[in-house]
Amino acid sequence: MQSLQQKASEYSGINTDDAFGIDDTNLFEKLGLQTFIDLSSDFYTRVYDDEEEWFRSIFANSKKEDAIQNQYEFFVQRMGGPPMFSQRRGHPALIARHRPFSVTHQAAERWLHHMQQALDTTPKIDSDSKTKMMNFFRHTAFFLVAGDELKSRNQSVACKHAANKPPEE
Amino acid sequence: MQSLQQKASEYSGINTDDAFGIDDTNLFEKLGLQTFIDLSSDFYTRVYDDEEEWFRSIFANSKKEDAIQNQYEFFVQRMGGPPMFSQRRGHPALIARHRPFSVTHQAAERWLHHMQQALDTTPKIDSDSKTKMMNFFRHTAFFLVAGDELKSRNQSVACKHAANKPPEE
Repeated sequence: MQSLQQKASEYSGINTDDAFGIDDTNLFEKLGLQTFIDLSSDFYTRVYDDEEEWFRSIFANSKKEDAIQNQYEFFVQRMGGPPMFSQRRGHPALIARHRPFSVTHQAAERWLHHMQQALDTTPKIDSDSKTKMMNFFRHTAFFLVAGDELKSRNQSVACKHAANKPPEE
Repeated sequence: MQSLQQKASEYSGINTDDAFGIDDTNLFEKLGLQTFIDLSSDFYTRVYDDEEEWFRSIFANSKKEDAIQNQYEFFVQRMGGPPMFSQRRGHPALIARHRPFSVTHQAAERWLHHMQQALDTTPKIDSDSKTKMMNFFRHTAFFLVAGDELKSRNQSVACKHAANKPPEE
């Protein structure tokens, strides 16, 4: 079986080096906390107003303010700022925390579509930071797709075990 | 349902503030790379030589050198050092990467037993760093127990769905 990051690179077209190019500079120091708050607020306004009902509905059980805070706190922590997310919620555990959601290829692309628009309309984000962030977001979105596939696969194997049928591999 | 970090705190007896006390000082700068390599090498020597076969067997499909490298690279990255783990393997995704293993309460306690011994025999680790690291490790071990329970729970619900029986909740 391919590893999670191999699948993420294959699906996204972004290799691990480029995805973690966010670590080459301290984006939190460069952009500041307010920029991350603005970015996540703009992003989730687009998501919660999405004309595509299938995508909007993924977020129906989460409060918009919580979604915004979870996101910018994670971004700040991962991009060189204080560990705001962990102080409040513990380990990011990205795949496990996305378990309740169906993270398909189509959902990843829609998420990235809104994030590209949000980046383009957040004035403080320069072009180099934008490129680095989009590489990271694109790789991460498909890392979660790979995580979602693992979930379905394990469930299917477990059910076959439960039904006393041999698993296929 | 309780959140992952609530369960982790309940099972471990360590609240989130204490668990992430590792962020109050830069432990990587204080202790240096070689200390983390020594710690993980000592830890996995204990694990792979464990007299308890049930625990040793959890690691039977992993190479000892890989286990050591994965662990110290993650510790270095999480405790203030360069993002060595992500540069090589992507997001830590702690729960997802522990999916293949059965992380029970008993396994968490055995892991912590060996880690306590490894910390006690790594001379460069001062008492304050040791306390911070054990709080972090204890909370994290039971965070993974909580993640493991989620896995069993989801599989059971999925299998009931697959068998056209209503899930229990």
